[in-house]
Amino acid sequence: MPLGSDYAGQSCSMARTLEIVGERWTLLIVRDLLFGVRRFTDLQRHLDIPKAVLAARLATLEEQGIVERTPQRELVLTGRGRDLWPAVHALMQWGEQHCTEHGPRRVFLHVACGQALDASGACPGCGREPQPHEIETRPGPGAGPPRREDPISVTLREPHRLLQPL
Amino acid sequence: MPLGSDYAGQSCSMARTLEIVGERWTLLIVRDLLFGVRRFTDLQRHLDIPKAVLAARLATLEEQGIVERTPQRELVLTGRGRDLWPAVHALMQWGEQHCTEHGPRRVFLHVACGQALDASGACPGCGREPQPHEIETRPGPGAGPPRREDPISVTLREPHRLLQPL
Repeated sequence: MPLGSDYAGQSCSMARTLEIVGERWTLLIVRDLLFGVRRFTDLQRHLDIPKAVLAARLATLEEQGIVERTPQRELVLTGRGRDLWPAVHALMQWGEQHCTEHGPRRVFLHVACGQALDASGACPGCGREPQPHEIETRPGPGAGPPRREDPISVTLREPHRLLQPL
Repeated sequence: MPLGSDYAGQSCSMARTLEIVGERWTLLIVRDLLFGVRRFTDLQRHLDIPKAVLAARLATLEEQGIVERTPQRELVLTGRGRDLWPAVHALMQWGEQHCTEHGPRRVFLHVACGQALDASGACPGCGREPQPHEIETRPGPGAGPPRREDPISVTLREPHRLLQPL
């Protein structure tokens, strides 16, 4: 049973959002898809979750029009899914501000300007909020020593453009 | 057991955030505290959740330094808690963009400029991202007919400054 039905009495748009993406792991799956992960196995190894949980979450995301399959059966975010970037970034930023000791674990740059996004997701160079495909991510000073050796974790140790297939 | 321990293998700051605020109902509680709700009973009636669930979530929020009690035992957000506003706003905005049919359910204005915040939380008048205490909320065109009669829902039908005690 999706989490959502609990929120049915709430008329706020945040309750609507959480009905769809508020289940355990869902926003971490969306984060990985924004990073460019496209395969079930890669998601499973990177997130380290049971296959049944991942399959259930992806089924909800497909039903809700957030994820779709390419003709090669790869997983990609729809426009509706890519629109979750500001929420994913804001949640990440709170963790960077309040749960790290040595600076950000991960940095996001607006590729065209070469500048790191500020906490609000805007580029200090041009003042715009770049879309995910205009953003490059790389580990920040707070990343610490590598802890995971799955293929996605290894690739994300180098600079990587968001949404570029991983 | 908090949701969080599941995410222990994840080194991303979003996983850290979700460990703290990713449990069911927690972000809706934070939203209500941002709106200015200060009493357990008001939260309970507005959210319509079991007392035990609400008490458990508030205990976690206090432990994590997101909520504190006034000398009168009222609940208020700490600075760390108020810093969740951009994430709460971003999640709400996704719902407003993708889960409403008649425009936004709720509007947020920068009081000093009198202008509605854009989807990123910035004021088109001054370009800044106002802090919660500088923002007024009121129902938007998509709010629809009143559905709830608890005291908080009734008060929030009129314009209200965020964090102002409700």
